[in-house]
Amino acid sequence: MPHPTWNLSPDRFFSPEPVQRRLAREIYASIRSLPLICPHGHVNPRVFADPDFQFGNPTEMIIIPDHYIFRMLYSQGISLEALGIPRRDGGPVESDHRKIWQLFADHFYLFRGTPTGVWLAAEFFEVFGIEEKLTSENAQRIYDHILEKLATPEFRPRNLYKRFNIEVLTTTDAATDTLQYHRTLRASNWDGTIRPTFRPDGVVHILADGWKENIAQLSAVSGIDVNNYSSYIQALEQRRAFFKEMGATATDHAALTAYTERLSTTEAERIFQRALAGEAGESDAHRFAGHMIMEMARMSIEDGLVMQFHVGSLRNHNRVIYQRFGPDKGADIPIRSEFTRNLQPLLNAYGNDPRLTLILFTLDESAYSRELAPLAGHYPALFLGPPWWFFDSIFGMIRYREAVHETAGLYNTVGFNDDTRAFPSIPVRHDVWRRVESNWLAGLVVQGIIDEGDALDMARASAYDLAKRAYRL
Amino acid sequence: MPHPTWNLSPDRFFSPEPVQRRLAREIYASIRSLPLICPHGHVNPRVFADPDFQFGNPTEMIIIPDHYIFRMLYSQGISLEALGIPRRDGGPVESDHRKIWQLFADHFYLFRGTPTGVWLAAEFFEVFGIEEKLTSENAQRIYDHILEKLATPEFRPRNLYKRFNIEVLTTTDAATDTLQYHRTLRASNWDGTIRPTFRPDGVVHILADGWKENIAQLSAVSGIDVNNYSSYIQALEQRRAFFKEMGATATDHAALTAYTERLSTTEAERIFQRALAGEAGESDAHRFAGHMIMEMARMSIEDGLVMQFHVGSLRNHNRVIYQRFGPDKGADIPIRSEFTRNLQPLLNAYGNDPRLTLILFTLDESAYSRELAPLAGHYPALFLGPPWWFFDSIFGMIRYREAVHETAGLYNTVGFNDDTRAFPSIPVRHDVWRRVESNWLAGLVVQGIIDEGDALDMARASAYDLAKRAYRL
Amino acid sequence: MPHPTWNLSPDRFFSPEPVQRRLAREIYASIRSLPLICPHGHVNPRVFADPDFQFGNPTEMIIIPDHYIFRMLYSQGISLEALGIPRRDGGPVESDHRKIWQLFADHFYLFRGTPTGVWLAAEFFEVFGIEEKLTSENAQRIYDHILEKLATPEFRPRNLYKRFNIEVLTTTDAATDTLQYHRTLRASNWDGTIRPTFRPDGVVHILADGWKENIAQLSAVSGIDVNNYSSYIQALEQRRAFFKEMGATATDHAALTAYTERLSTTEAERIFQRALAGEAGESDAHRFAGHMIMEMARMSIEDGLVMQFHVGSLRNHNRVIYQRFGPDKGADIPIRSEFTRNLQPLLNAYGNDPRLTLILFTLDESAYSRELAPLAGHYPALFLGPPWWFFDSIFGMIRYREAVHETAGLYNTVGFNDDTRAFPSIPVRHDVWRRVESNWLAGLVVQGIIDEGDALDMARASAYDLAKRAYRL
Repeated sequence: MPHPTWNLSPDRFFSPEPVQRRLAREIYASIRSLPLICPHGHVNPRVFADPDFQFGNPTEMIIIPDHYIFRMLYSQGISLEALGIPRRDGGPVESDHRKIWQLFADHFYLFRGTPTGVWLAAEFFEVFGIEEKLTSENAQRIYDHILEKLATPEFRPRNLYKRFNIEVLTTTDAATDTLQYHRTLRASNWDGTIRPTFRPDGVVHILADGWKENIAQLSAVSGIDVNNYSSYIQALEQRRAFFKEMGATATDHAALTAYTERLSTTEAERIFQRALAGEAGESDAHRFAGHMIMEMARMSIEDGLVMQFHVGSLRNHNRVIYQRFGPDKGADIPIRSEFTRNLQPLLNAYGNDPRLTLILFTLDESAYSRELAPLAGHYPALFLGPPWWFFDSIFGMIRYREAVHETAGLYNTVGFNDDTRAFPSIPVRHDVWRRVESNWLAGLVVQGIIDEGDALDMARASAYDLAKRAYRL
Repeated sequence: MPHPTWNLSPDRFFSPEPVQRRLAREIYASIRSLPLICPHGHVNPRVFADPDFQFGNPTEMIIIPDHYIFRMLYSQGISLEALGIPRRDGGPVESDHRKIWQLFADHFYLFRGTPTGVWLAAEFFEVFGIEEKLTSENAQRIYDHILEKLATPEFRPRNLYKRFNIEVLTTTDAATDTLQYHRTLRASNWDGTIRPTFRPDGVVHILADGWKENIAQLSAVSGIDVNNYSSYIQALEQRRAFFKEMGATATDHAALTAYTERLSTTEAERIFQRALAGEAGESDAHRFAGHMIMEMARMSIEDGLVMQFHVGSLRNHNRVIYQRFGPDKGADIPIRSEFTRNLQPLLNAYGNDPRLTLILFTLDESAYSRELAPLAGHYPALFLGPPWWFFDSIFGMIRYREAVHETAGLYNTVGFNDDTRAFPSIPVRHDVWRRVESNWLAGLVVQGIIDEGDALDMARASAYDLAKRAYRL
Repeated sequence: MPHPTWNLSPDRFFSPEPVQRRLAREIYASIRSLPLICPHGHVNPRVFADPDFQFGNPTEMIIIPDHYIFRMLYSQGISLEALGIPRRDGGPVESDHRKIWQLFADHFYLFRGTPTGVWLAAEFFEVFGIEEKLTSENAQRIYDHILEKLATPEFRPRNLYKRFNIEVLTTTDAATDTLQYHRTLRASNWDGTIRPTFRPDGVVHILADGWKENIAQLSAVSGIDVNNYSSYIQALEQRRAFFKEMGATATDHAALTAYTERLSTTEAERIFQRALAGEAGESDAHRFAGHMIMEMARMSIEDGLVMQFHVGSLRNHNRVIYQRFGPDKGADIPIRSEFTRNLQPLLNAYGNDPRLTLILFTLDESAYSRELAPLAGHYPALFLGPPWWFFDSIFGMIRYREAVHETAGLYNTVGFNDDTRAFPSIPVRHDVWRRVESNWLAGLVVQGIIDEGDALDMARASAYDLAKRAYRL
């Protein structure tokens, strides 16, 4: 019996209804080869800075860094140690990468119908040329196959960048980052475009682990002695200017809630001093973060950097896992989010200014139709980012359009972000978006809501133009 | 190349699947010509009182009064001044209506796939006989065409009323309104039916702009000197009786939350006096509004007026726009709404009384399946209004039925309200509802959930009977 | 004209699209005859303990015990007295069961497209062999027909159990229950499997009606004098051991919120003493319930009983109905539920322990994609129960999978529970689930998301394996 192969229908993610499917195919054909705009993501710039960079083995490349994968295995009772996830204390974890790969293959059925399952199938087939479905039986053979591929020049990141047809790829970098790889890249004569993004969370959330060290680091990299609120602001402005010089067109901000508040300078200074003294409380942290979002909007209007705001993730929910393995282990859990009232100070101060582009991301889908689409359908500065994280999925995308489109329209949204650490999965992720959008638009046509000309324009906007415009690329 | 025409398939909003589509068509055919019941809306009664009333030019009729339209343009950076929206201070705004029309046409793509886009296409075609899609090129030609039409006798509101096959149309009127146009209408021998609706928000929300003036006005129109709580209640009862005499069958109430509470007369009086003295606070306003909803339910049981309750809109979110242009400029943004606990006092007091009909509207869709359908599926007095505002849309209607129907059934809902200021869009809005409902019912039949006989009965109920029954028309 | 018959298409609940329908049919064929696993429900064990047990007349069997049915009639203005619902005070209610049946038949249209309508149609046809739709005309004839059937040996519960192909059926029993019928059953030589479930709500919620009597009862049945916190815990442990001995594999817990908190023994004791003294307040009750959920998880790890947690129903919303007719009269209304923060103490203490199986049920669907699927997709101990109560419906099931699957996958869910008092409706309820799941999986296949082999495996898991595994049956 032949080994089962991936089910990668050329019509995947399209409606089975023949008229809609035919049209979806046509729309998709018109956009599938457009270059990829990747305005928000987490690929390490190091992989491009070194022209000879090689990804490690399949387990190192696919499993260990991807919390989408290991959290699912963990949820079914497989320990993170058994999956080779490094412990903070350096204690022993599985180091036989073939054994981990086998464990992954043995449990591959867990990913049936999940985005991870969908991405991996396409990545295995389209990036690595593997036709067989991953199973317990062929696990080692597939491991060997990927290992071989990764050793070839075609799998150097710079070459994959070309093959993937990427036009621009953006990284996410701490405000204190020296951007050494970006500097190397700019100095090189490689013609790919890798841009940094200014993410100051580490110096803004005054109760976060390591804040004081981050402030010290901020002093060091900016050359400004950050010892009070005004030098802090000055240092941030200096770093923004530096990021901009290094190619950044955007900033990124994360917060538990969308709370915004304009503090007086005196209040801001008082809180900042309490933070330096290690005496700040929860309320200080909450208000200071809300104030800094306002400040960042002000700076964005001044320096033209596009502003991204990711709201609603309660980080490190599982303290046991956090203590043993650290952050980003699949235990960040969303909470309910409120936007209408929380954003009112910010939007009243800056939302009417078309010089500002503020792109919002939510993990609370119930806010889309109730709060976010009405806000984006009114304020000139406000735009909605694509479905984020758990919702970067086929049905998540469909729900997003159904909840947002009728109120905010297409042009208050900003196309797609792959938001990934997993470089080889990038083309696959954009492809899912392009397919789902093509099918959504085909559905609107066959239901007589738009016409085919509209659909073709909208598809191109969604796949390419909107992201490029919103991020000023 | 011929100019592109509207995509107005006779099968629009129906599933592309042939069996369902055929059935949807059949169901729709059985209801499409039923007279229109318009039990809640905002058309100005003046347009019917004067038999020779003419709508102004296309910009005056279609753009300037419709915040659905100008908010979308504003969200993309076009100033309200450029759209001719009058400023509070009388400052200069664009007065060249052809220029505004051109701007609208240039940005008509923003409405692709939105309810506004869908309504306008059908209105242009079916009401004004325009086959071409509105574009930058034909904008002035279309302007001329509409202008010409509006000058003809066929486009007098009374004639459109007949042409639209309206059986009854209801306006929404302040408690202090003298209903002069309704009086004129009743005195005339025109055979259309325009009914007022009693909306006392202006005298109930004690912190709202103009409340004291409204109370003075209430004294004036009622002939009762409203100087304490009991004269206030007396004046309200008197106005209700007057509205009823003038043909009203319903009242309408709006509030930020669904909070209800029975105050003692002493407490109510105390708050009322503080309000008169300008000393009432947020909590006073909140409690007084919650109490007055209880009082209005009591009065409804006594006088038989059906009670509507619209919950969850945070008015005038954008203070800059409010200060410059006033209310109703597309900046009313929904908030999360709670019903289970908030309505408990009201429903325990009056919800078991079948003499009361209380129709609820929400801007928080997440409450439909969780709170509203279970409540409506239990309390005899409670009914759910159709999808309101942002959700008066194709996908909003579908989500509504999917969230509500299985728990509340059809007969605890009340059919459709067009809820519009835009008189010429009325037939189009009912048509969207009738089509979406026909397709929904056809879907239930083809999935074996109901049979065709059920579907035909339910379609008629949804399009005509339920609204007529619920509003006692 | 022949009487209309039930619309019971063999393809019911399948997509009308022919390719998907064909596949749904095939998947369904592979699981439709699997035995029924009923791991959570409310059938009275008495009906099996007595081999000659007969259900009463149709009104006694179908209407009076089923609040799904009478709440809908009540919501349309029919009094509970007219439906024969017994009053607490023994006051007069309708006792002519044929008259009640007629009233039900006259209003049967209210159930069009509701789960009750769907279940009844299939139950009438498949269990009682009635082909005609219930109408005013044939109501008495159908009454006679059912009455006759119920008198035959084939309709003894034990025979229906066999006919329904039930493998195991679980009841829900108070912690203080002596399980006399379960004892009788175990002593008999009947080969059906009826298992109790340990539900301690009555002794855990310290402000609930009858708590003190329940504690007295707990002392009586356990033989432990429950006069302080430690004897209370001891008695609970003893009861759990007894339930386990009597075949229980699970416990069940209900709470208004998902709040959890570990109290110190001293605090727990203090609250317990206040409760005994009748001096406990709302906050005591809330904290004690949150603590007891933690304790129950601890005990589950020790004794291996699977833990179910049903969250979010505000019981007895309608005080008038509660006072006159008691609990469970269709007036339990859901509230918004928060899980991420509320469950954090519990999950941090026990959620990483694969010996614990904690199955969560929600009445707030908005939490599925935002909180529950991310939690279940991470914590080894956490699983999501099927759509509960209002959501045990065709569209409720579809929304459940769409909201949960992409994040949590299939294997962090636990298949189906019928959760019903209505024994004769059990096969129909499982059949709805199996059909909807088959169609959902067929949809994933035709959209290229999974392949057919996956779909067949997943269907079997959903219909049979997952429930059996999760409940350790």
